[in-house]
Amino acid sequence: MPNHSSLDLMFAALADGSRRTIVDRLSRGPATVKELAAPLTMSLPAVLQHLRVLEDSGLIRSEKSGRVRTCRLQPAALQQAERWIADRRSGWEHRLDRLETFLNTEGDPS
Amino acid sequence: MPNHSSLDLMFAALADGSRRTIVDRLSRGPATVKELAAPLTMSLPAVLQHLRVLEDSGLIRSEKSGRVRTCRLQPAALQQAERWIADRRSGWEHRLDRLETFLNTEGDPS
Repeated sequence: MPNHSSLDLMFAALADGSRRTIVDRLSRGPATVKELAAPLTMSLPAVLQHLRVLEDSGLIRSEKSGRVRTCRLQPAALQQAERWIADRRSGWEHRLDRLETFLNTEGDPS
Repeated sequence: MPNHSSLDLMFAALADGSRRTIVDRLSRGPATVKELAAPLTMSLPAVLQHLRVLEDSGLIRSEKSGRVRTCRLQPAALQQAERWIADRRSGWEHRLDRLETFLNTEGDPS
């Protein structure tokens, strides 16, 4: 179970279109900073700042080899955020199922 | 497909422990503002501000009847946020599957 602050950081990291563009690209495989910056219309320092927010949240990791920094998605972290939402949604759906069962039972003349 | 700004608002809304406590409570059924405020150690105006952020994001709706405001989760909105993450995670997993297939084929002496 992720603690509160790691979910804070992960959801905050995902609350930005440029950072989601980076995550989307990384879902297709590792990429260098240069490759990640290409589709974004912003300065390199701005890209690096977004990468830092993503890395601090645990959603990505990066590794430097020589002058090239390569970033990778951390699917386990992504799954924590996904699961938090999924658990709440399924809680709601189970409640609707129980309500339906209750109403069907009430309507049953037997 | 949700637009960029609605995902911005939904993920930003989820990036706060108090707001997640509210969503968690609402996943078990509708609740009044008073019920939602009970477990939170903050002033009523602070709770109302959190509810406004959640409502602006589309994750919850509220309705006033007399003096009582009741809030409900909007599971379709929650599902949009969940699906965005799930699609990126599954993109990554499919890539790993393809890599495994490739490596198995390469290792096959036939």
